[in-house]
Amino acid sequence: MPHNIRFTLQYDGTDYHGWQFQPNVITIQEVVQETLRRVVGHPVQLVGAGRTDAGVHAWGQVANFHTGNPIPPEKLKKAMNALLPRAIRVLALDPVAPDFNSLGAAKSKTYRYFVFRRQEPSPWIFRYSWHLVCKLDVPAMTEAAQFLVGRHDFSAFRASDCNAKTSVRSLENFRIRIKENLLVFEVTAGGFLKYMVRNMVGTLIEVGKGRFRPEQVKTILESRDRKKAGPNIPARGLFLWRVDY
Amino acid sequence: MPHNIRFTLQYDGTDYHGWQFQPNVITIQEVVQETLRRVVGHPVQLVGAGRTDAGVHAWGQVANFHTGNPIPPEKLKKAMNALLPRAIRVLALDPVAPDFNSLGAAKSKTYRYFVFRRQEPSPWIFRYSWHLVCKLDVPAMTEAAQFLVGRHDFSAFRASDCNAKTSVRSLENFRIRIKENLLVFEVTAGGFLKYMVRNMVGTLIEVGKGRFRPEQVKTILESRDRKKAGPNIPARGLFLWRVDY
Repeated sequence: MPHNIRFTLQYDGTDYHGWQFQPNVITIQEVVQETLRRVVGHPVQLVGAGRTDAGVHAWGQVANFHTGNPIPPEKLKKAMNALLPRAIRVLALDPVAPDFNSLGAAKSKTYRYFVFRRQEPSPWIFRYSWHLVCKLDVPAMTEAAQFLVGRHDFSAFRASDCNAKTSVRSLENFRIRIKENLLVFEVTAGGFLKYMVRNMVGTLIEVGKGRFRPEQVKTILESRDRKKAGPNIPARGLFLWRVDY
Repeated sequence: MPHNIRFTLQYDGTDYHGWQFQPNVITIQEVVQETLRRVVGHPVQLVGAGRTDAGVHAWGQVANFHTGNPIPPEKLKKAMNALLPRAIRVLALDPVAPDFNSLGAAKSKTYRYFVFRRQEPSPWIFRYSWHLVCKLDVPAMTEAAQFLVGRHDFSAFRASDCNAKTSVRSLENFRIRIKENLLVFEVTAGGFLKYMVRNMVGTLIEVGKGRFRPEQVKTILESRDRKKAGPNIPARGLFLWRVDY
């Protein structure tokens, strides 16, 4: 009987065209699948909990696959980390029930967006954050974020080429906090539309700059009009932080 | 009269073939010079305090150049950071005396080598450190490092293709300390030979592993034989940390 193996992965997405397999470009899924194939000796189909877009990182992506190979988990983890590019790391690897599906079983996903607030630039932090020195009104952004929490049609915050069947999503939580030189946006939902997190955070930042009043975010949401919302901000500040089951 | 401008630069060397201009490969010096040329409107010659090798980073590289362009330093810094790749950042930029030369005037350079000690791998820290989980005897390494301090012929720790005229160098200081999950090697000297820091740290790590006794480092140094010393460890853990004038 084949084993069902669940991975927790961390990756630096800078040099990859996102998670999801695509022809002609390199993706995380392809690299991990190809490495798995070499280790277990047969082609595998890896199911990921969240699609991360090009340049987006993962602090805790979850994926699973089936194999008949009885290789012990600790050995598989070691082999994977020896063969994978250093930008992709297997943190944990556990056998799970045969019917576990990392996408279908996920209750919620949490994303974090990091804004680096120090005047002085930095080549290290830059890779993992958006550098924005201008004044930002954090209480106004926090107030605005609450209009997004709940079940809504998020058409105003979806990419023009997003092909999800419905644009209705349920946001459980939207927190903004300051952690040393970083401003951290944290949002949790059962699922997201393409570019939704970056479009929402981009809109909140416009609120922080005073270009929108907090309650305008409600109007933007209700308009379902992408052109009314703020810009899609850079991928490099975004992390798929956690998947809850 | 031309202005002499001193820069302090920070860079992530991962994707560059080191500091020094070389034909056919991309180097930090070339990228910074080319960006300067665009900003000041004429070709410039950038003098760097230290050559960093391919993949080595800089926390505080210093360089200077001459220009007749009266652009104010703050404006020049802003223009540079707007045009440079994000992996290279100008931290400070100051007018200096006409005869200041960042290479010739440097009293000493300090390098740091970072070893990441946590069991769990990390795609972010990996870029800037060498991941080494095995047991290391820090007091033995510290004892061994002291044999390297002072004025010696460092032939045993120089690259085979190092073309410095003399292999005699004076080490002022060699410190090893633990900082959370990192083991930090810090070495200061007026100058270094090619791969010297990585060869010395590689040798000390062999001491830490118990493969050499601390006093063997003295014998290796005196042998002037590169084959007797430890390996040239990965570039990614090394930073040109500071240049003192």
